Amino acid sequence: MTIGSFIPPQRTLMGPGPSDIYPQVLQALSRPTIGHLDPLFIGMMDELKQLLQYAFQTQNPFTIAVSAPGSAGMEACFVNLVEPGDTVIVCRNGVFGDRMRENVERCGGIAVMVDNAWGEPVDPALVAEALTAHPEASIVAFVHAETSTGALSDAEAIAKLARQHDCLTIVDAVTSLGGVPLLVDEWQLDAVYSGSQKCLSCVPGLSPLTFSARAIEKIQARKTPAQSWFLDQSLVLGYWSGEGKRSYHHTAPVNSLYALHEALVLLKNEGLEQAWQRHRDMHQTLRAGLEALGITFVVDEAHRLPQLNAVYIPEGVDDAAIRARLLNDYNLEIGAGLGALAGKAWRIGLMGYAARRENVALCLRALETCLK
Amino acid sequence: MTIGSFIPPQRTLMGPGPSDIYPQVLQALSRPTIGHLDPLFIGMMDELKQLLQYAFQTQNPFTIAVSAPGSAGMEACFVNLVEPGDTVIVCRNGVFGDRMRENVERCGGIAVMVDNAWGEPVDPALVAEALTAHPEASIVAFVHAETSTGALSDAEAIAKLARQHDCLTIVDAVTSLGGVPLLVDEWQLDAVYSGSQKCLSCVPGLSPLTFSARAIEKIQARKTPAQSWFLDQSLVLGYWSGEGKRSYHHTAPVNSLYALHEALVLLKNEGLEQAWQRHRDMHQTLRAGLEALGITFVVDEAHRLPQLNAVYIPEGVDDAAIRARLLNDYNLEIGAGLGALAGKAWRIGLMGYAARRENVALCLRALETCLK
Repeated sequence: MTIGSFIPPQRTLMGPGPSDIYPQVLQALSRPTIGHLDPLFIGMMDELKQLLQYAFQTQNPFTIAVSAPGSAGMEACFVNLVEPGDTVIVCRNGVFGDRMRENVERCGGIAVMVDNAWGEPVDPALVAEALTAHPEASIVAFVHAETSTGALSDAEAIAKLARQHDCLTIVDAVTSLGGVPLLVDEWQLDAVYSGSQKCLSCVPGLSPLTFSARAIEKIQARKTPAQSWFLDQSLVLGYWSGEGKRSYHHTAPVNSLYALHEALVLLKNEGLEQAWQRHRDMHQTLRAGLEALGITFVVDEAHRLPQLNAVYIPEGVDDAAIRARLLNDYNLEIGAGLGALAGKAWRIGLMGYAARRENVALCLRALETCLK
Repeated sequence: MTIGSFIPPQRTLMGPGPSDIYPQVLQALSRPTIGHLDPLFIGMMDELKQLLQYAFQTQNPFTIAVSAPGSAGMEACFVNLVEPGDTVIVCRNGVFGDRMRENVERCGGIAVMVDNAWGEPVDPALVAEALTAHPEASIVAFVHAETSTGALSDAEAIAKLARQHDCLTIVDAVTSLGGVPLLVDEWQLDAVYSGSQKCLSCVPGLSPLTFSARAIEKIQARKTPAQSWFLDQSLVLGYWSGEGKRSYHHTAPVNSLYALHEALVLLKNEGLEQAWQRHRDMHQTLRAGLEALGITFVVDEAHRLPQLNAVYIPEGVDDAAIRARLLNDYNLEIGAGLGALAGKAWRIGLMGYAARRENVALCLRALETCLK
């Protein structure tokens, strides 16, 4: 069998990610590859650190992009911060909280689960209870914006409770970064990871990551090395650190980092507050249109993510058939439900470059036509 | 400070990788992103598996690309195949054998080291001795083509010894894949990983990986889950498997996979044997030119990699100054020495698209001028 070049169609990506990519980012992606130890590349990495610090609203010197997708960013937090026998309070209100539990257990830690229903935010009162019941806990882990349900949790409140009990926080900001306020320094979050392919509208494959001074202290005080060599941030630090000679750790994904740099330049030029406002505005337009079609939201208004709209599939509608029609007739991707919401909900993303008036218009008209 | 777009120069990449990228691969990289569960993307992944099977010369159904660089491909082999307490014979004749030891130990395994000098191949007689001395060993791990020294080891012979002692093999083929013969099925290798950015001339960030039926059996018989969630191939299998519905594991690096697909289409069109011959031919031309400059090789002719030429820096020559001049005056990157060879050797890569007559000519003339 002869296999030729793969020529993908031009889709409009309004699922849970990857989101629509800025044309400038695709352009940056295909610029000439240079060496990962080239002085010009190292200069680019220094800029990238500054741009990531802006996006995360942090001064943390350890602010980098993990050379792998968000799931690896999650794992980088757990393998570096959890030592065998550590107790970690894990908040679970969707798929990704459960993945955090998996991570804790694979690190030899003990996961104490704080459960909220799918579609609800994490309840800080339950976190407080768990902290009181488990004075041995050293970490609280939670998802800021649950990609599986579209619920936003109060990261500031949870982090405050954690500090009161002398715990570090591990925060999943995969879907929140760039879409809703995320103030790493002001809220005193300790280990925060994200993904390139959500509200940053960069290609998938990288995971922005920032560690506070408290997190770095815990890593430096480890009694055993991190179980992962690839994700051992005490080694990665030698490559990303701004001081003097870079030490080789692994070959950086050069072109993907060009793309992330460009996406962050675009975010900085727009301004974080303006980007957040744009996500809110587009969400309001989408919401009005969906409600006019009789479609209801999974998450209460107070905790709803503007960039990820989980809505119930109307009664009697064939989930897969509608999504296939949107894809085939309109080149429009919306997301299926995940986990407990599989077959019951759709997830309509308005992330980064996808949060534009023309996308909302396309989505509403196409849905209206297909649902008739 | 205002940070603008990063515009890299056009370098000629003749270091140890990343190598020069095919223009067609950069073009493929920037094609429109589609969803990682899009039926068209899944079709592309099926083609990619076939293309990887061709490159590896294997029929292994489990043949994929890990969504992260070669170091993660290495770790994927160890975390899946090594269980706590397992004894692993690790051959070390350069940097990457030692990284294998790190991996074994972080998995809770016991590494039995077989050492050869830097620049020498692994000696099968020493492997045989270690196998006899350690009947409890279950795995033999070695580097086929040592990127740090340019030495090629006899993978077929080592794998045969391993099988005689009922051991699986973990093989680093990061620099060998596409550059020299690597016959996974004929040589009966069990777990083989590579990198996208060497002789495949694709962008860095992906790690081709193949597991034999024996390796899959060992994974399925594990008593404990792999310590890495991200690299747990029993989970990844659900996403890459050709049968029926794909299950979501992590968001695939969509555009990088387009690029790898294109690079493998180019390799298939050229033909593996032709690619191997081109590497040999370019190596002979480079070698003649280097010898004319009085430059000598680190590795004996019999075990020398055509695609990675480690040569001694001539007496009295300032390593860093020459490399900086090549980079600044000629936009030419050659590699520094690594580990025991730091400051003593250069590594001149002729990998994939970089193995062209014009590159060899540029390198020889530029070196001649700079060394005067």
